[in-house]
Amino acid sequence: MSTNFSMVAAHSRRPAGEDNIFAINNAAQQAAKVHGADKVVNASVGALLDDDGKLSILPSVIELLKSLPAVEYAAYAPIAGLPSFLEASKKAVFRDQMPEGYIEAIATPGGSGAIRHTIWNYSNGGDYILTPDWYWGPYKTIAEEHGRAIATYTLFDEKDQFNLQSFADKVEELLKKQDQLVILLNSPANNPTGYSLTNEEWEAVLNYLKKEASSPEKKITLFVDIAYIDFAGETNECRSFMKQFGGLPENILTIMAFSMSKGYTLYGMRCGAMICVSANKAVAEEFKAVNQFSNRGVWSNGTRPAMTVLAQIFESPQLLTQVEKERNTLQQMLSERAEVFLENARKANLKICPYKAGFFITIPCSNPEAVTKELQKDLIFAVPMGKGIRFAVCSVPKDQCAIVPEKLAQAIAKFE
Amino acid sequence: MSTNFSMVAAHSRRPAGEDNIFAINNAAQQAAKVHGADKVVNASVGALLDDDGKLSILPSVIELLKSLPAVEYAAYAPIAGLPSFLEASKKAVFRDQMPEGYIEAIATPGGSGAIRHTIWNYSNGGDYILTPDWYWGPYKTIAEEHGRAIATYTLFDEKDQFNLQSFADKVEELLKKQDQLVILLNSPANNPTGYSLTNEEWEAVLNYLKKEASSPEKKITLFVDIAYIDFAGETNECRSFMKQFGGLPENILTIMAFSMSKGYTLYGMRCGAMICVSANKAVAEEFKAVNQFSNRGVWSNGTRPAMTVLAQIFESPQLLTQVEKERNTLQQMLSERAEVFLENARKANLKICPYKAGFFITIPCSNPEAVTKELQKDLIFAVPMGKGIRFAVCSVPKDQCAIVPEKLAQAIAKFE
Repeated sequence: MSTNFSMVAAHSRRPAGEDNIFAINNAAQQAAKVHGADKVVNASVGALLDDDGKLSILPSVIELLKSLPAVEYAAYAPIAGLPSFLEASKKAVFRDQMPEGYIEAIATPGGSGAIRHTIWNYSNGGDYILTPDWYWGPYKTIAEEHGRAIATYTLFDEKDQFNLQSFADKVEELLKKQDQLVILLNSPANNPTGYSLTNEEWEAVLNYLKKEASSPEKKITLFVDIAYIDFAGETNECRSFMKQFGGLPENILTIMAFSMSKGYTLYGMRCGAMICVSANKAVAEEFKAVNQFSNRGVWSNGTRPAMTVLAQIFESPQLLTQVEKERNTLQQMLSERAEVFLENARKANLKICPYKAGFFITIPCSNPEAVTKELQKDLIFAVPMGKGIRFAVCSVPKDQCAIVPEKLAQAIAKFE
Repeated sequence: MSTNFSMVAAHSRRPAGEDNIFAINNAAQQAAKVHGADKVVNASVGALLDDDGKLSILPSVIELLKSLPAVEYAAYAPIAGLPSFLEASKKAVFRDQMPEGYIEAIATPGGSGAIRHTIWNYSNGGDYILTPDWYWGPYKTIAEEHGRAIATYTLFDEKDQFNLQSFADKVEELLKKQDQLVILLNSPANNPTGYSLTNEEWEAVLNYLKKEASSPEKKITLFVDIAYIDFAGETNECRSFMKQFGGLPENILTIMAFSMSKGYTLYGMRCGAMICVSANKAVAEEFKAVNQFSNRGVWSNGTRPAMTVLAQIFESPQLLTQVEKERNTLQQMLSERAEVFLENARKANLKICPYKAGFFITIPCSNPEAVTKELQKDLIFAVPMGKGIRFAVCSVPKDQCAIVPEKLAQAIAKFE
């Protein structure tokens, strides 16, 4: 039999290839076995780990999950999601910063499912999906799975602020070629840079989009990936930009991606939601109908017990307070690590992308592959990206965060 | 603002419309509130309920799920699924009937996710997907979501056996138009008819496909939906057809859909797998690579705790025995209901589709909508389909199963 015989349709032929991050994580774990875990810096993992390398967990959330009656695990959720969950997810996303407009929610498996539905339903085959040059790799996988491609703009200007000019140029260029435009914007606490757009930057983004939306045949979907928002600073302050999504033209649709993975440490339960904001009721209703159809047409329904947990948390002020208290402890740990890293980066004259909050710090450099290989000689395992290196402060103890910047600076200098 | 303004891409414009089964279930629940639950026959629900209308649950499975350490809920599973789960899912699917060949598995959210990947990766846009005229409605939704259409053959011949001629005619017709053909075959315990192909019928199906596969450019993917296999009779007897999937030509790929929803009463946890059988190693490896890519490109990864539960069950003969013991009690309850229904159908001269096992019995008739409306006057709630009525014996107590056939016969007679 032929060794390169293929059964799949032409559009689904993919290069095999191991996942890059998975491979580096494996290498770090192997090194830990040989040299001892305390000698190895494993900065590849995109989950919040405690100083012993164990996954950080919100005990009250797990307790809630385990206390549910059997039927909550056994029964199907409705296709669109449990109504109580959908209401809770709106509260979890907006808190006191609910914008004006028509707001609808549909349950999805984490943020990934929300990205899938948005790309599939709000762009056409062959379209470009717009993201910044620093972006989470699976954006590309999801776009390519569905026959779309990624186009990028430059995220930062020379002042290390949001590069509105590059963004605007790219939006304009794409809208000359296509009528539907999906924009994926991961803020606050962007993965991989840790950047958060300021309210002024959001205003500038929306003003520019409003200008483009003056052509009524152009349909712009602004997908705001807030996967890390619960580790992005004070609850309402870091959400204050959301108010701006009210009162936009009807041909700009905002979709927020809610996920229980990070903020509720339920990565493994695959529960999230996509939530739209529109000034036009018909657009919000269409959002609900179309994405419910897509749920049925892709994975059927979502993980019921996780939905019930979120509903219970937002029905009980006491529970919410407890969850936030536990989460604050984790946030504190994360902030301290980042501060130590930043401080030592300054000392070592190490240029990093403007970090404000979140799980990752990114170091721009010209030979990321070579630099990360070099770092592995010192048992430091970080992830090379197109234009730099992603260092997961979320998974590295503070004392290790202190020593890495100097080593990074040295390794980068070698390959400049 | 315009009330019919649309933001979605043209391919995603869908009629709104409530889900039919959901609406009927709602009506039944309303009737129960007015007339009392014992007066209402709710045969709309596709889940196994006990005689009090409560979801039937395997206690040992739920206990196992609740006893897991916190990290099992919190941590991500690998994109392809936990390796221990993938091994367990092969055992759960094949038991002692493992066919020869290369067998690979990928975790999916229930059987639905497996259908999605199969349709997307093994057919082309615009292709027809082949199912019998009696099929589970979401097959159509999944096909349409992905720009494919459903083509049907007649499931039963005049002897109420598998209609090989109709199947063969349709396969031949479609393979004249398209090179990739995905065939969805839900057996044993077909939803909605309860039919199971005999080993001889399977042999005839495969022989015919082998004939078609003599054209090497034709690529046939036989998707075997075994969602109800754990309620389809003796474990190895009802799986004995699987041996036939060994040694097929390389351009016939078999994919089995495993689901924990029914057999492990974990509907709400969304855990399943797609498992391929191919005589060509390259095809099996491609299956793994392509569907892992699709996982990342659609929903990322699966529900970890459910995967761990299945792995534990198949690592412990004691646990497996306990699960099977509990499941046998449910199977017994289901069989008794079906027997009573069949017996009274014979007495009432009610023609039904050939039922062998499973959750549903189907009554062919010419005015299904009118007949189900008529039945509602007697507080009997069943689901109208294209060519008949689906009666969910899985959710109706035995004493009610006894009285319904007579009423059904009367209602059908009214509209003939």
